[in-house]
Amino acid sequence: MDRIETLADIDHSHVTFHDGMELDCGVRLGSLTVAYRTYGRLNDQQSNAILVCHALTADQYVAERHPTTGKEGWWDQVVGPGRPVDTNRYFVICANVLGGCMGSTGPRNIRDGGVEPWGTDFPPVTIRDMVRAQKRLTDHLGIGRLFAVIGGSMGGMQVLQWAASYPDAVFAAVPVATASYHSAQNIAFHEVGRQAIFADPDWQGGRYWHTGRIPARGLAVARMCAHITYLSEQALTRKFGRRLQAAPKGAEEAISLFGEMFEVESYLRHQGSTFVRRFDANSYLTLTRAMDYFDLAGEHGGDLAAAFRGTHTRFCIVSFTSDWLFPTEESRVVARALNGVAANVSFVEIATDKGHDAFLLDEPDFRRTLSGFLAGCAEHAGLTE
Amino acid sequence: MDRIETLADIDHSHVTFHDGMELDCGVRLGSLTVAYRTYGRLNDQQSNAILVCHALTADQYVAERHPTTGKEGWWDQVVGPGRPVDTNRYFVICANVLGGCMGSTGPRNIRDGGVEPWGTDFPPVTIRDMVRAQKRLTDHLGIGRLFAVIGGSMGGMQVLQWAASYPDAVFAAVPVATASYHSAQNIAFHEVGRQAIFADPDWQGGRYWHTGRIPARGLAVARMCAHITYLSEQALTRKFGRRLQAAPKGAEEAISLFGEMFEVESYLRHQGSTFVRRFDANSYLTLTRAMDYFDLAGEHGGDLAAAFRGTHTRFCIVSFTSDWLFPTEESRVVARALNGVAANVSFVEIATDKGHDAFLLDEPDFRRTLSGFLAGCAEHAGLTE
Repeated sequence: MDRIETLADIDHSHVTFHDGMELDCGVRLGSLTVAYRTYGRLNDQQSNAILVCHALTADQYVAERHPTTGKEGWWDQVVGPGRPVDTNRYFVICANVLGGCMGSTGPRNIRDGGVEPWGTDFPPVTIRDMVRAQKRLTDHLGIGRLFAVIGGSMGGMQVLQWAASYPDAVFAAVPVATASYHSAQNIAFHEVGRQAIFADPDWQGGRYWHTGRIPARGLAVARMCAHITYLSEQALTRKFGRRLQAAPKGAEEAISLFGEMFEVESYLRHQGSTFVRRFDANSYLTLTRAMDYFDLAGEHGGDLAAAFRGTHTRFCIVSFTSDWLFPTEESRVVARALNGVAANVSFVEIATDKGHDAFLLDEPDFRRTLSGFLAGCAEHAGLTE
Repeated sequence: MDRIETLADIDHSHVTFHDGMELDCGVRLGSLTVAYRTYGRLNDQQSNAILVCHALTADQYVAERHPTTGKEGWWDQVVGPGRPVDTNRYFVICANVLGGCMGSTGPRNIRDGGVEPWGTDFPPVTIRDMVRAQKRLTDHLGIGRLFAVIGGSMGGMQVLQWAASYPDAVFAAVPVATASYHSAQNIAFHEVGRQAIFADPDWQGGRYWHTGRIPARGLAVARMCAHITYLSEQALTRKFGRRLQAAPKGAEEAISLFGEMFEVESYLRHQGSTFVRRFDANSYLTLTRAMDYFDLAGEHGGDLAAAFRGTHTRFCIVSFTSDWLFPTEESRVVARALNGVAANVSFVEIATDKGHDAFLLDEPDFRRTLSGFLAGCAEHAGLTE
């Protein structure tokens, strides 16, 4: 039974707003903490700030070694000196999302006026709530207008929400591998993950801090299931095919044939077991819900174009051919809505067999697209080197 | 905590071979029981028999009310009087697969020379073992050559194996929505399901008969995950989209927004909870393994064509455009191998948005294809009405 050791209290850089924040669900958080990291230097005009929005299970450690896993930043290939999001040129901010588990207010925090963590009593949050919290942060940092907001997957949802909620505060927007709503299939996969967590007796109704045992097996199953959706069939076939390896000893392996298991099984188990050491199950429930409820058109009477009417933001929409979680067609819906309001939008579909995770991996075409778009925007914004 | 009530001992029609059967894994089963159902009448020449092979979670009740669920036969639209597999004309046999839980030898049976069920000590079985057991049955019924072998998904794997193992015993073969091997992605999804079962403490290392509690939550999660793969994204969107319904009361729903849940979530939960009342978790482990290990080319030095060299069987391969579990490309691999040995093969891809499950649903084009193919074969076989 795993314990929450690596989720122990790290002193993340953060700001706390003691006046709290009202959420879409109507609940008011008594105080709001936003944990964040910055890279590069804000120029004197405060005009070179780029906000990076992270995906479901990432966090603010976008371009530096992670304090718990020790791994390099999750977007090291994209953000850093000389990279597409060049920290020699731009001031990059990344905040842990509201509802997350790396320092921003979320289910692991002590509840308002209480002594125990929120757990599943943490109010449901929306993508718009996450963006509101980030806006508090950028206001606090003295940034009236972000040069760019960039993010993939759930991060891309935040990018779209930023552009819709605060059009004057976003000069350029790059929603990557994302959609303006979560599809029925995606909701279904999230629900499987949630049910796996609920099914784990160590979940204990979300109050696992009482015993110190975390719902590691349920959360691992949730992660395994989700992980398949992040890859393409081609990528799985290329990486693992039907190759076998020796199975570890153990009762659960009794059903393996000839004491072997498929490499892809071993890989998935590894993905599951490492994930539970760094992520909080109640945060996983909260954030998957937020994604499921995201429907930008729904906020505007079913008319997605209305979300962007009059926008001056420059958009660069990026999708990947083999992404079946957020297929190109869903990016096209966003592009069409933006075209419908005569927005400045470019739309690039990158050919790759790496699936949804392509945005996190080494994709030269994606990096070139991002560099080129940002360079063009910098020129239009009058941002000198 | 669910009990195994509906899995109580029903007296399924069956035959027991007391000399047992040797399995691919090298273990010899001391006795072999094959539970089966037949429909229609075997003609005097024994030349009108059609074997229907069932998929992972189906069983022998192909065209009649199911004894435990009370639902109509799983292929009622395809098998019956006046249907494509016309029981006025053909003698139809369907056997519960080896390793299943509806009467054929499987993990629920008392182990050889023991007093307790096999559980996870049940030897791993292969698709070829399943087919061997079916051959014992058809031999027992006095049928030297089957007019046709038909099946979808795991049933289609058995069809291909029949044609490869017993070419002279199969006049016509209809592998539907299937493949000659299980892909890395499919193995991965199966592994998530298995891990969900292992994670359920009621699984009890597979010895759940000790307490009478079954691993209902784990098995339900496995079923939910698999069920998503049986449908297409389009089908899920068409059936449920993002529609909401009132959430039931309960701690697990605390994280739902505004007390609502998505209809697709409710549907999946229903799929999970009804499944556990009719299916045995250890059988699920055994049968998913059998599918994962299926690789017909692997049995022939990597050359799929070699599996069919010299065959006189007439093949009709059917795939469905929106099936992403067994995509058309995998049927094409089979068709190419058959073409490579100059086999008599037709290949039909049916346009549908219903996904893998299309073979079980009302698909007029599929029924027409099957009727036409069987009529042509009957003529060639000299089968008179």
